[in-house]
Amino acid sequence: MSNKPAKLAVILSGCGNKDGAEIHESTLTLLAIHKLGSDYQCFAPDIQQHHVLNFITNEEMKETRNVLIESARIARGDILNLTQFNAKEYDALIIPGGFGVAKNLCDYAIKGDITYINEDVKTAITSMHKAGKPIGALCIAPVLLAKLIPNVTITLGDDSGTAKSAEAMGAKHKVTSHGEIIVDSANKVVTTPCYMLDARVDQIAAGAESLVKAILDFIE
Amino acid sequence: MSNKPAKLAVILSGCGNKDGAEIHESTLTLLAIHKLGSDYQCFAPDIQQHHVLNFITNEEMKETRNVLIESARIARGDILNLTQFNAKEYDALIIPGGFGVAKNLCDYAIKGDITYINEDVKTAITSMHKAGKPIGALCIAPVLLAKLIPNVTITLGDDSGTAKSAEAMGAKHKVTSHGEIIVDSANKVVTTPCYMLDARVDQIAAGAESLVKAILDFIE
Repeated sequence: MSNKPAKLAVILSGCGNKDGAEIHESTLTLLAIHKLGSDYQCFAPDIQQHHVLNFITNEEMKETRNVLIESARIARGDILNLTQFNAKEYDALIIPGGFGVAKNLCDYAIKGDITYINEDVKTAITSMHKAGKPIGALCIAPVLLAKLIPNVTITLGDDSGTAKSAEAMGAKHKVTSHGEIIVDSANKVVTTPCYMLDARVDQIAAGAESLVKAILDFIE
Repeated sequence: MSNKPAKLAVILSGCGNKDGAEIHESTLTLLAIHKLGSDYQCFAPDIQQHHVLNFITNEEMKETRNVLIESARIARGDILNLTQFNAKEYDALIIPGGFGVAKNLCDYAIKGDITYINEDVKTAITSMHKAGKPIGALCIAPVLLAKLIPNVTITLGDDSGTAKSAEAMGAKHKVTSHGEIIVDSANKVVTTPCYMLDARVDQIAAGAESLVKAILDFIE
């Protein structure tokens, strides 16, 4: 790595694991980036959430929320519309998990397959991949890479159903446990299961830190 | 410490630093608790937020949100109404910061003094203190302790105006920098400045971990 801190783009998908970005995974990704001496810029698409859930009852609430505005809560207001993302300006891209990835960024949670991906998300991932820059994805977020990067190797934890759906998209899936990462060196893709497993917060921190470390290893 | 993991109660005040609980401080408190081998239960009062802000524009949004329901986002749904809190069941109490503490749990952000504290918050703090159990508070949350615990020694970072308002409530204030804690051994109170300073995420993690460690040192 050069002396200049690496600059990582982080795509958020709302605020809260059931209808947005998983808060612990997002925060602990930002923590790992700072801990390892790098900087980040958060992004999110300016779109309505698929729905808004009451996290206590799991019932849908009669309101609408915007993914960019809610994601700004995790970023403490310092966030950009994903339309402003330019692959040239960042050394790597990381996507934390949460159902927001599978409900707001694409339709995986609704279809069990991906038939739609938000255009800005698609552009961000494919432009970074074409530029030969590393991409990290936590929890359920690797499904986006399974769909967009041919023959990518990822992990989604240990659930065979989820693994099969990723394989049906053309990905290779590897089973992982707490804090483990899967590194696809050819594609410069790093993935970790996080809350795809029943995990403690320190296990999420371990996975996020290992992932960010592996991402930074790809950056000269 | 005994072999049984300590059980810590954590009071949240919403979800997001500008109108609720600070997300990084809350998550990194939960991380420190798990990392140090203890367990937590999150609580929040079942009340309406003072207001809802758009974190990008800082403008008020025309909607209402409930502190308990929003706090559940940080707790991944596993949260109790603060009316259910019983000091006998917990070894310590921790209150992360964020404007939610000063807007929802009390009126400090509106008055620059505390003329009102939510009854359940007051009961939780005073019952733990009377039981001789340790209490931790991050960022702006120590103002609650300044108001409720006579002659307590706390930190609110390095801003002299904020320090003076705590002193006016009867507290002693000590200036701190990133990751530092102030331990009031007589009152078993631990405080740390976090985002009262312009901080990086790893500095928040350091402060939260030192605070939780000092809290656990008070528990036999």
